[in-house]
Amino acid sequence: MNAKKILNWDEVSDTKEKAMVLDIIETGLETANPYSSVYNMLSTLSKDFKKFNKIVVIGFGKASYRMALACESILGERIFDGAIIVPKGSIKLSELKKIKVLEGTHPVPTEINVNSAGKLLEISGGLTTDDLVICLISGGGSALFTYPAEGITLEDKQEMTRLLLAAGSTIQEINCIRKHISGVKGGQLARHIYPANLVSLILSDVVGDDLSSIASGPTSPDPYTFKDVYELFEKYHLVDRVPKNIMKRVLDGLNGKVPDTPKPGDKIFEKVKNIIVANNIGTLKAMEEKAKSYGLNTMILTSYLEGEAREVGRVIASIAKQLVNQKGPILPPCAIFFGGETTVTLKGNGRGGRNQEMALSVAIAIKGLKNTIFASIGSDGIDGNSDAAGAIVDGQTVEKALQKNLSPIKYLENNDSNTFLKQVNSLIYTGPTGTNVNDLSLLLVY
Amino acid sequence: MNAKKILNWDEVSDTKEKAMVLDIIETGLETANPYSSVYNMLSTLSKDFKKFNKIVVIGFGKASYRMALACESILGERIFDGAIIVPKGSIKLSELKKIKVLEGTHPVPTEINVNSAGKLLEISGGLTTDDLVICLISGGGSALFTYPAEGITLEDKQEMTRLLLAAGSTIQEINCIRKHISGVKGGQLARHIYPANLVSLILSDVVGDDLSSIASGPTSPDPYTFKDVYELFEKYHLVDRVPKNIMKRVLDGLNGKVPDTPKPGDKIFEKVKNIIVANNIGTLKAMEEKAKSYGLNTMILTSYLEGEAREVGRVIASIAKQLVNQKGPILPPCAIFFGGETTVTLKGNGRGGRNQEMALSVAIAIKGLKNTIFASIGSDGIDGNSDAAGAIVDGQTVEKALQKNLSPIKYLENNDSNTFLKQVNSLIYTGPTGTNVNDLSLLLVY
Repeated sequence: MNAKKILNWDEVSDTKEKAMVLDIIETGLETANPYSSVYNMLSTLSKDFKKFNKIVVIGFGKASYRMALACESILGERIFDGAIIVPKGSIKLSELKKIKVLEGTHPVPTEINVNSAGKLLEISGGLTTDDLVICLISGGGSALFTYPAEGITLEDKQEMTRLLLAAGSTIQEINCIRKHISGVKGGQLARHIYPANLVSLILSDVVGDDLSSIASGPTSPDPYTFKDVYELFEKYHLVDRVPKNIMKRVLDGLNGKVPDTPKPGDKIFEKVKNIIVANNIGTLKAMEEKAKSYGLNTMILTSYLEGEAREVGRVIASIAKQLVNQKGPILPPCAIFFGGETTVTLKGNGRGGRNQEMALSVAIAIKGLKNTIFASIGSDGIDGNSDAAGAIVDGQTVEKALQKNLSPIKYLENNDSNTFLKQVNSLIYTGPTGTNVNDLSLLLVY
Repeated sequence: MNAKKILNWDEVSDTKEKAMVLDIIETGLETANPYSSVYNMLSTLSKDFKKFNKIVVIGFGKASYRMALACESILGERIFDGAIIVPKGSIKLSELKKIKVLEGTHPVPTEINVNSAGKLLEISGGLTTDDLVICLISGGGSALFTYPAEGITLEDKQEMTRLLLAAGSTIQEINCIRKHISGVKGGQLARHIYPANLVSLILSDVVGDDLSSIASGPTSPDPYTFKDVYELFEKYHLVDRVPKNIMKRVLDGLNGKVPDTPKPGDKIFEKVKNIIVANNIGTLKAMEEKAKSYGLNTMILTSYLEGEAREVGRVIASIAKQLVNQKGPILPPCAIFFGGETTVTLKGNGRGGRNQEMALSVAIAIKGLKNTIFASIGSDGIDGNSDAAGAIVDGQTVEKALQKNLSPIKYLENNDSNTFLKQVNSLIYTGPTGTNVNDLSLLLVY
């Protein structure tokens, strides 16, 4: 892979330090690449695959096509059968030979998704302890791999979600209920595949990598029970309003007529390996290594970054001031890394995204600060409602803008970071990268 | 000084780790104490004071009384004359023997302030190169030590500030103009004292310790000129609206009829030593040393902290998650320190302050996280519109609240952090500490 191919280097690398930052970001994007991350993992794992009779590959999520390509490239003819579910229209012409490409709608699932999911269940069922299923999981997988439990319709699921959101329940609570009205989520796919062996290769787009959250954890144990579900109905005063098919299933569950989701310690998980092939912290670590190779002191401050983007930017700027003025907490030249996913509360009607808004906020707060660069991108290459992946700014960015009579604060107030940053040549473009390990940010002080 | 006397230990130190955090905070408050910080500095400096003929002490600011007490305690009869300006009504019965206590209104200056300032100028003027003036500067000093330039009235100054605020000028721009219509700010007090020697002992309440900002820099050079002032009038279209006394002075300044503020490199500053006796970073360093004595790994992340308190809290929580789950960027047991001053944008009508709101936000975001404590206080002992100095929370704080049917998010939305934190026994009380080195926060993971 050519290290200089992903980003728009010529436009923004006007100093050697900015070029260094871009090079570090490129390293991150290469590390998070679905193809290479699956390829590298399978290169190691496949040595143990000789013992298996059949190998079946299934997958779902936005990155599943590239993950499947890596599978075929390593396993080739060893693959007995396979199918993946990708977003409708995203793959025009498949280069896969063994693995079929099925479609689903995203983010709202429809009957197509259920049909595609059914086919995945078909080819991954009825296998023996001599066989192996490789399951490729990535962001968007929860919607694409939709398969309601018996007796429940898509409409029931939608109505349930609507009721829960209106009642103010948390995403954790919604997921708890979802897993109990799905036929595959919350470890139920793993039960379906049992007693065959299962290796899930997971590209994590969930901050903190909770396995039971990524694509609603189809191959991970679920600690919650039908009893928990019923208590949530009570908590939100929904007992009389839950769709009747769902209430029937929950009551059946309480009475032991339908099995609960598989719990931690269940014997089926003895046959399961859940392996994260790429995630935010792993990507940050690769970027950190690259930074070290440039002779920089380094620190990964967090891979759990959250908060309103512009305010997070002010905190990052406050760290920049410490580095520049107090030479701490680590000694410049240095790079501090941040990963996670911030949020933007829209007030204006401009063009931008959380990474660009954070960068603009940093630029305002480090105005005039020397030897300081901040860059942030969405690893999927698409930041907010813009065509940029993110931005790179320094202590002179705002001064440049003021010379052009641009008011950075007005652009920030209008959520118009993209329009602002474009005029001071600070946007980073990658195009869609086909991966998603959340956002990658770094502060360089030299 | 008894280390266990400042805080309300019994109420909040329900674990030995919380007691450790409180002890570290106490160490910070002792370090930032105006009396001890001046005492310690003068103990060293006073060895060189034998050579001086007269020693005159002047001072202004909320901490000046305690700073003056330390002066008398070290220098005693060596003090020839002295006077300080304190907030009206704040000192009922002075224990000072040589140094007179004058008053001024705060935060809005009135004629009392001008009279008091005149007396300070009187006793610090007409001295020789054999004499020394010690100037005690602390927060609030800018208002308390008000002395308009000749020909300008208090009303002119107020009207000027009103015009500038309405026009949307920055605090830096307002200060630039203020210094040019004052008779003492922007280094002009130092010029008044010249050729006598001048030692300013400064307790910094300005994030970043910019000497020309603390109390508007009466003993620091001012890089800005009357030309800059006139350009600001033009920039904000105020040339025709500036009070006529002020415009006359600025035009006189442009024509060289009145001297500009003293510039960097001016010979008067050869006789001046500006010494910061206490500030945020120094206080954080003392707290860090205390934390090390407990065997904790430590890091001062920033002494420039800014941002909306609740969002800053989310960023701090994201660092806590990294420490707990990834054992980085430093290894627990560890303490990470933050200093500066966050802001609260009021939306509700509750009781609270920036430190309490930040702590509540951290508590929400670290819910369930083990072995994690966060504490934050205003070093002046008064946080927002409450009687608390700040708060101490952990991963169980929100769970405790939920058991009591308190909704942390609703309290946060109503800016009612004080009421919430009181009910879960998480408030830190110190009473007014008499100092101000901004806010002190620390995150402990064990």
